[in-house]
Amino acid sequence: MVYLPDEGEALVAAGNAVYLNMGTLFPIYEQTIPATAKAAHDAGKAWVLDPVGLGIGSLRTKLLEELKPYKPTIVRGNASEIIALASLWELLGAEDALDRPRGVDTTDGVDAAREAAVALAHYTGGAVVVSGEVDLVTDGTTVVRSHGGSGLMSKITGCGCSQGGVLAVYATCADAFTAAVASTAHYNLAGTRAAAVATAPASFKVAFIDELYRATGEEIAANPMCVEEA
Amino acid sequence: MVYLPDEGEALVAAGNAVYLNMGTLFPIYEQTIPATAKAAHDAGKAWVLDPVGLGIGSLRTKLLEELKPYKPTIVRGNASEIIALASLWELLGAEDALDRPRGVDTTDGVDAAREAAVALAHYTGGAVVVSGEVDLVTDGTTVVRSHGGSGLMSKITGCGCSQGGVLAVYATCADAFTAAVASTAHYNLAGTRAAAVATAPASFKVAFIDELYRATGEEIAANPMCVEEA
Amino acid sequence: MVYLPDEGEALVAAGNAVYLNMGTLFPIYEQTIPATAKAAHDAGKAWVLDPVGLGIGSLRTKLLEELKPYKPTIVRGNASEIIALASLWELLGAEDALDRPRGVDTTDGVDAAREAAVALAHYTGGAVVVSGEVDLVTDGTTVVRSHGGSGLMSKITGCGCSQGGVLAVYATCADAFTAAVASTAHYNLAGTRAAAVATAPASFKVAFIDELYRATGEEIAANPMCVEEA
Repeated sequence: MVYLPDEGEALVAAGNAVYLNMGTLFPIYEQTIPATAKAAHDAGKAWVLDPVGLGIGSLRTKLLEELKPYKPTIVRGNASEIIALASLWELLGAEDALDRPRGVDTTDGVDAAREAAVALAHYTGGAVVVSGEVDLVTDGTTVVRSHGGSGLMSKITGCGCSQGGVLAVYATCADAFTAAVASTAHYNLAGTRAAAVATAPASFKVAFIDELYRATGEEIAANPMCVEEA
Repeated sequence: MVYLPDEGEALVAAGNAVYLNMGTLFPIYEQTIPATAKAAHDAGKAWVLDPVGLGIGSLRTKLLEELKPYKPTIVRGNASEIIALASLWELLGAEDALDRPRGVDTTDGVDAAREAAVALAHYTGGAVVVSGEVDLVTDGTTVVRSHGGSGLMSKITGCGCSQGGVLAVYATCADAFTAAVASTAHYNLAGTRAAAVATAPASFKVAFIDELYRATGEEIAANPMCVEEA
Repeated sequence: MVYLPDEGEALVAAGNAVYLNMGTLFPIYEQTIPATAKAAHDAGKAWVLDPVGLGIGSLRTKLLEELKPYKPTIVRGNASEIIALASLWELLGAEDALDRPRGVDTTDGVDAAREAAVALAHYTGGAVVVSGEVDLVTDGTTVVRSHGGSGLMSKITGCGCSQGGVLAVYATCADAFTAAVASTAHYNLAGTRAAAVATAPASFKVAFIDELYRATGEEIAANPMCVEEA
């Protein structure tokens, strides 16, 4: 985890993928986030974007506007965040943009963001993950609904944000859609298993991270999902 | 959790209470902390102050002086911090201020801070929580002593600071004194229960957060407390 | 934990040891880190340095060059970091410096850093800890190899960095080499014990911190180590 502009560029140069999370902005991020995204884009390396809290303050909006040309390999957010990002990037029809709810709450179901997710994926050429009770993953052509997980995941601060790290790990060695589907299945499997042994948030978090570590490729591939056309 | 001035103001506008903790100051907080407190004060919304580490460096003192007119709804600290804040805000008699120990250590018992807590509550019109072996909560008229908890709570970094978050949650839907008494009881109940199942800090922390989650309103209301006149 | 320059100086004045970790640099650290190291050096107090990530960006290199005259009481790093620091401070023979691998990876074994660690300890007059499967600790005259720990320690973000805190605690009340050997034994003992009860990273972390808390002086002293001349 780095905070300075040239350190972001150095991480891009040293690795195969980088994750930019906008949850807790510091002033220096005004430089670090665009510099890192540009470095990844220019080097043809994967980068994952979590547009947390779009609408809180002005810097998030400014940064997300700047990031548009760098086309994130994978975007992950809840339904409201995905809709807000697609709207900010003017990827939705005018009527959709006017009629839809906006904001950073998580009350929208993933289906409310289906069109926005598909539009984002069409624009970026990558994948989009909409987190919800059933997660929606799309590359703009195919939509995968990934089952599993637990309601306790929403009781852990940063649980959604942390998925960005798992997405980036997969993106080091797989194409955007494969990485997005596999890491979402991995996350859901770990959530399902943790909920089998823990009934409150802190012990759930411990069990969840343990299960992320224990899951095998075969088990992840067997996690339930449904596939449909976008 | 936000760090930028306009984001602090946005959180105030979006919610019913905000918590300002001064534990780990960054330069931008020189703007963010007063801007957020002012926004809460001007909007008539609750805000919780934890004056951590008053006396370390110059910015904490400067910020706490600036915060005085915004009258925090609830102040929480250990005895030394409460005494130091009441002294900084010149709420203690001259003799008291001169005769008392100062600093950020936690060696003072809560009774050493009783007068300072009452004076602070008189000034703010809100509530003050002094954390100690038995916690002291006052609105300037009544003093509640809240029992329970565990010595292991002092072995967890940020355990006292985290109570500010619980205080702010209660303050979203209750008056200052009710919120302060209820959240302190909630914290103590969770500590008592966690100590029944864990004997070392890390497993205690997991159990403590789990018990914060599990406690019901009836159980919290039944946590032992004593009431006296201020 | 503080971030501002005068707060670093205040912590030095208030305590007996301070720990400077360079893992996640913010712009203000350009002032805070040298100011704090200088304060400790000038006051004759212990300070511990963890030169994390030397080679990522330019500020780490600049800061580590500035820190050289303040001679850290204890340096801790993995083999690559220790070699990189000794090279940056020009403590290795020209041939060694040219022939050795550099960087921030952890692929070098501790023996690859033996000469660099001894050279660093000669220069600082303090102790150096090289973390690896078997840890190497030296004061430039004697080399101790400390056994124990667990491979799961490398699966916990910040596990190595956290040892710096334990080193600093010991350095408050012991000379550099005693503090370095004892805290490394303490860490290894806790790792061994945690691995006996946990098989995945998150439950291991909980068990590890619990065992750090439980270990007695006698048990720490009995943790296996081998002693040789430097």
